[in-house]
Amino acid sequence: MVEPGPPIPAIPAQDLDHISLAVPDLDAAMALYRDRFGCTVTDPIEIAAQGIRMAYVQLGNAKIELMEPLDESSPIAAFIARNPAGGIHHFCLTTENADDAAAAASEAGVRVLGKPGPGHHGKRLFFIHPKDSLGALIEIEETE
Amino acid sequence: MVEPGPPIPAIPAQDLDHISLAVPDLDAAMALYRDRFGCTVTDPIEIAAQGIRMAYVQLGNAKIELMEPLDESSPIAAFIARNPAGGIHHFCLTTENADDAAAAASEAGVRVLGKPGPGHHGKRLFFIHPKDSLGALIEIEETE
Repeated sequence: MVEPGPPIPAIPAQDLDHISLAVPDLDAAMALYRDRFGCTVTDPIEIAAQGIRMAYVQLGNAKIELMEPLDESSPIAAFIARNPAGGIHHFCLTTENADDAAAAASEAGVRVLGKPGPGHHGKRLFFIHPKDSLGALIEIEETE
Repeated sequence: MVEPGPPIPAIPAQDLDHISLAVPDLDAAMALYRDRFGCTVTDPIEIAAQGIRMAYVQLGNAKIELMEPLDESSPIAAFIARNPAGGIHHFCLTTENADDAAAAASEAGVRVLGKPGPGHHGKRLFFIHPKDSLGALIEIEETE
C-alpha cells in the first residue's frame, strides 16, 4: 500500500510582491505615503489598457500599488463607486512560472481571470477570481 | 532666509509585515493556502481579547494573517456580515517606535484607534482610522 504524498500546489507561492489600493485621487495618495509615512513613491504612470494612473510606494520588503481610475469605463471606477474614499483592492503573490500556475489552477477548477499575459512591467501575470479565494482578489505574478 | 526642510513623517514606515484576511471558515482558509499555494501555515490560535481565531501563512518576505470571528460580538463578525465570502481586512506596516508614531500621528490630526498596546505576540501596535488613510485600515506595528 502506498500512502498518498502531499498535494502538489497548483500555484506555488513565494513572496508578497505588493498590495494594491484603489484611490479616488492618486496625487493625494502619493502625498500621504510620502509625507506621513516617509516612503519613496515612484513617478505616476498611465496604463491605458487597464484604465488607470498608478504609482508604487516602496517599502523595505514589498510595494504598495496606488491606482486611480482614468475614467468611468475603468474597472477600478466601479470599485471607487462602491468605496468612494478608496480601499484595498487586491494583493499580489509571486510564483516561478505564471503560465504553469494558470494552467494548473484552471485544471484544479480555479477560475483564472484573463490569460496570463505580460503586465506593464513585462512580467507575466494573471488574477484568481475572488469566489475561488475566500473573497480576496489575488494577482499572481511571475518572479523577476 | 531658510528654506523649509522636508516634512518629518509622523509614522516612518519600514516594511509590509502582513496583510490580514477576514474569513468565515479558518480551517478552509488554512487548507487553501497550504494546498493550493504550498505555503507553511502556523497552528491556529484563539485570541479572546480580539474575538478571533487566527493563523499565519508564511511567505518568503511577509505573512498573510487569516482571521475568523469567534462569535457575533467579534469586530470581525460585522465585516463577515458585509462580506460573507471573506475579504481583505487590513494591512500592517512596521515602524521603529509605535508609541512615538501614535503620538505624532495624533498630533497631526490622524485618528489613532486604541492606545498603542502589545498585541498577542507582545509587539506594540495601533490602528489608523480608514477615514484618515484613503479608505484602507492600516495597522502599525513596532519593528521586532
